[in-house]
Amino acid sequence: MLDQLTICAIATSPGMGAIATIRLSGEKAIEIADSVFQSTKSNKSLTDQKPNTLHFGSISDGTELIDEVVVSIFRAPHSFTGEDVIEISCHGSVYIQQRILQLLITKGARMALPGEFTQRAFLNGKMDLSQAEAVADLIASTNRAAQKVAINQMRGGFSSELKNLRGELLHFIAMIELELDFSEEDVEFADRKQLKRLVSKIEEILRKLKNSFQLGNVIKNGIPVAIIGDTNVGKSTLLNALLNEEKAIVSDIHGTTRDVIEDVVNIHGTAFRFFDTAGIRETTDEIETLGIERSYNKLDQATVVILVVDTKNDFTTVFGRIVKIRKRLAGQHLIIAANKVDRGLPETIAKLKEMPLLANEKLVFIAAKLKTNLDELILEMQQAVSLDSISEDAVIVTNVRHFEALTRAYESIERVQLGLENLISGDFLAQDIRECLLYLGEITGEISNDEILGHIFKNFCIGK
Amino acid sequence: MLDQLTICAIATSPGMGAIATIRLSGEKAIEIADSVFQSTKSNKSLTDQKPNTLHFGSISDGTELIDEVVVSIFRAPHSFTGEDVIEISCHGSVYIQQRILQLLITKGARMALPGEFTQRAFLNGKMDLSQAEAVADLIASTNRAAQKVAINQMRGGFSSELKNLRGELLHFIAMIELELDFSEEDVEFADRKQLKRLVSKIEEILRKLKNSFQLGNVIKNGIPVAIIGDTNVGKSTLLNALLNEEKAIVSDIHGTTRDVIEDVVNIHGTAFRFFDTAGIRETTDEIETLGIERSYNKLDQATVVILVVDTKNDFTTVFGRIVKIRKRLAGQHLIIAANKVDRGLPETIAKLKEMPLLANEKLVFIAAKLKTNLDELILEMQQAVSLDSISEDAVIVTNVRHFEALTRAYESIERVQLGLENLISGDFLAQDIRECLLYLGEITGEISNDEILGHIFKNFCIGK
Repeated sequence: MLDQLTICAIATSPGMGAIATIRLSGEKAIEIADSVFQSTKSNKSLTDQKPNTLHFGSISDGTELIDEVVVSIFRAPHSFTGEDVIEISCHGSVYIQQRILQLLITKGARMALPGEFTQRAFLNGKMDLSQAEAVADLIASTNRAAQKVAINQMRGGFSSELKNLRGELLHFIAMIELELDFSEEDVEFADRKQLKRLVSKIEEILRKLKNSFQLGNVIKNGIPVAIIGDTNVGKSTLLNALLNEEKAIVSDIHGTTRDVIEDVVNIHGTAFRFFDTAGIRETTDEIETLGIERSYNKLDQATVVILVVDTKNDFTTVFGRIVKIRKRLAGQHLIIAANKVDRGLPETIAKLKEMPLLANEKLVFIAAKLKTNLDELILEMQQAVSLDSISEDAVIVTNVRHFEALTRAYESIERVQLGLENLISGDFLAQDIRECLLYLGEITGEISNDEILGHIFKNFCIGK
Repeated sequence: MLDQLTICAIATSPGMGAIATIRLSGEKAIEIADSVFQSTKSNKSLTDQKPNTLHFGSISDGTELIDEVVVSIFRAPHSFTGEDVIEISCHGSVYIQQRILQLLITKGARMALPGEFTQRAFLNGKMDLSQAEAVADLIASTNRAAQKVAINQMRGGFSSELKNLRGELLHFIAMIELELDFSEEDVEFADRKQLKRLVSKIEEILRKLKNSFQLGNVIKNGIPVAIIGDTNVGKSTLLNALLNEEKAIVSDIHGTTRDVIEDVVNIHGTAFRFFDTAGIRETTDEIETLGIERSYNKLDQATVVILVVDTKNDFTTVFGRIVKIRKRLAGQHLIIAANKVDRGLPETIAKLKEMPLLANEKLVFIAAKLKTNLDELILEMQQAVSLDSISEDAVIVTNVRHFEALTRAYESIERVQLGLENLISGDFLAQDIRECLLYLGEITGEISNDEILGHIFKNFCIGK
């Protein structure tokens, strides 16, 4: 267990800014802030000030003035962490940020661990575990869909529903365990019909949640796109055109550099993760001769496959490629990008237009070099996963930990369902229900241990 | 002139953090924030809330929830800019920051120009120009001395004194100009004795301020240090040891990478700027053969010169080097770092100890590889410029613009002084006084124009 000391950290992005925010949380937050702060207007101590108020003044270490700041006061339990919280808004010099932080530490605060503010919010009952995890997802969100799903989850999402279902299930297990106590007498306290209805409701909800993970994962990490095609059909030109489409929001922020194996780009609010882009960019003959065969490896990981074909080639060659790719695909969305349409063979173009498309297939004529029709291509990429259809209160699982717990809870509830059909005895039933309860509880944090918590919060940034 | 629209910008460091702050300033700041904000606890509009209060709630674009935020309200004139100011503290996702900013813009705010918040603070009389400039210096400060000087200046520094002197001088010019109106009558409204006293007071203050610039420049940009010496005496080892001394505060933040020509490091609160460190690191024979001669180029730019000598060499060789360097120096502080003291020749070490030192010279025995005595070396480096002697209310000019204006004001006041000695006529006197008034006024911004303002604020960061 962590200690209960007052913690502090820089909460804003590291580096120089106009202003920066340093956060203190804990029993002594206000006292510690007060010991280094002098209000410009009031002689009152911060401890005597009203909550949710702002105070302009200066911070000094007793001998030297460090900065002029604005201090925000939040009082327990009406704060992010549920404890007393002080936020110090100082000038954004890195030196000043560090100096104030060091000063707070000498006055008795301790550096917060990653995610410790949110962890305290969880431990103080301000949010459940899945909501706490959503805070990290929200901070990390780089596109509309990810932000939408994270904020839904942060505001309750599926966890309140799971908590209710778990509560109902708890009622039944109590009844069944009562039966076991009276097992000699062969009574049924737990109404099997009601239990069946509840179990099938839970089964349905868990199945939906579990299945939403594929979409959730795509939202969180970007839609995996593979661009494939023969040598010289324009794969690299197309990739560059797509990557430059909205250069301002390219996720360089995440340290995604051009020489890594994947490029994540936000295009019109949707994140796409382009596979093996280094491979596409390589131009040495040795590698290019491997040609299309090389690309097949990535197909399994892709949700959307863009097959680039060259309309300057005759239709037979082009069609041969399409047929070959169709054989390799297993449910992925295929977008055939018929490239170089500005100088393609009229016959090839005409025959492509007449070519019947399979389900999950789209055909777009483009000229990557001229950036012709790229919007249509992007539209098809987006519609392939239709993130736009995510409604305001969409329930989507984006978290691997939740997905695993949901999968296990689902397996146990299936066993409960089967057991109810087969009229198995109460003790077997109780065991499976208990297992389901355990996994449901793990998601919301009703059941948790230090190891789970440590694992979850260590991936947070410091200051949150 | 800039417009009076409500402006907005992200005020915290760019990139992902736990939280980020978006700032709005202007007549419609509160109204605009209110149009996108819904308080969790209160149904009151933000426009009806008290100033200096914090409000928790959510931001939405009308259809979609964007984030849960805390809004701070400041009301004119009691705000940084002197206008109504709103600060929105949101989750630190780059996407969310951008999304909120875009939303504020669609609601009628405009993106702030660099430094526009501070510029408005100046235009609204919240601070004078030199104070506004100190805000930028404070944000950019990377060490104790720079922070100290900047915050002194931000809190008034020398500008209130200059303003007073300028006021007194204005009184005299009014008198002298009155004399000119009555020139036929040969009266003296301006008491020449009093004027002389004032002028000599101004002369003294301006001279001090002007002379403080050399120190000020060092504080702002780091003390320039040149490390020189023969091949294989341990220059590179020493440099790396010094750079690693306080690795946590190495100014990588500023994009200083190892392959640029200078390394700036904060060592125990003082910034040192090491020259041509790439040169020191180069180890190819071709360059090393250039040896010590190569280093001479940097000596002129350095405040502190560290001459590394190898105590494993005989004293004659070592002393030869010292003599050679002494000839080249022109007032710089020379620190002779007698290296490899752990395995040096006893005779060389003994003779070095007996060697008389010149003024501005220090001798330190070190073993760079073992990091022996580096603290002593650092102490000597710091004492060479004695930044520690800067008192809390030190008046130090760090700004080139101020230095130039001070130099010109000083030149005109010298002419006034000379004119008074030589009893020159009032109209000549008035001309020189007016020139002095002009330059003094430029520093504090009592006299300014759009060009000066534009030049000053364009170097600010956005959001300040």
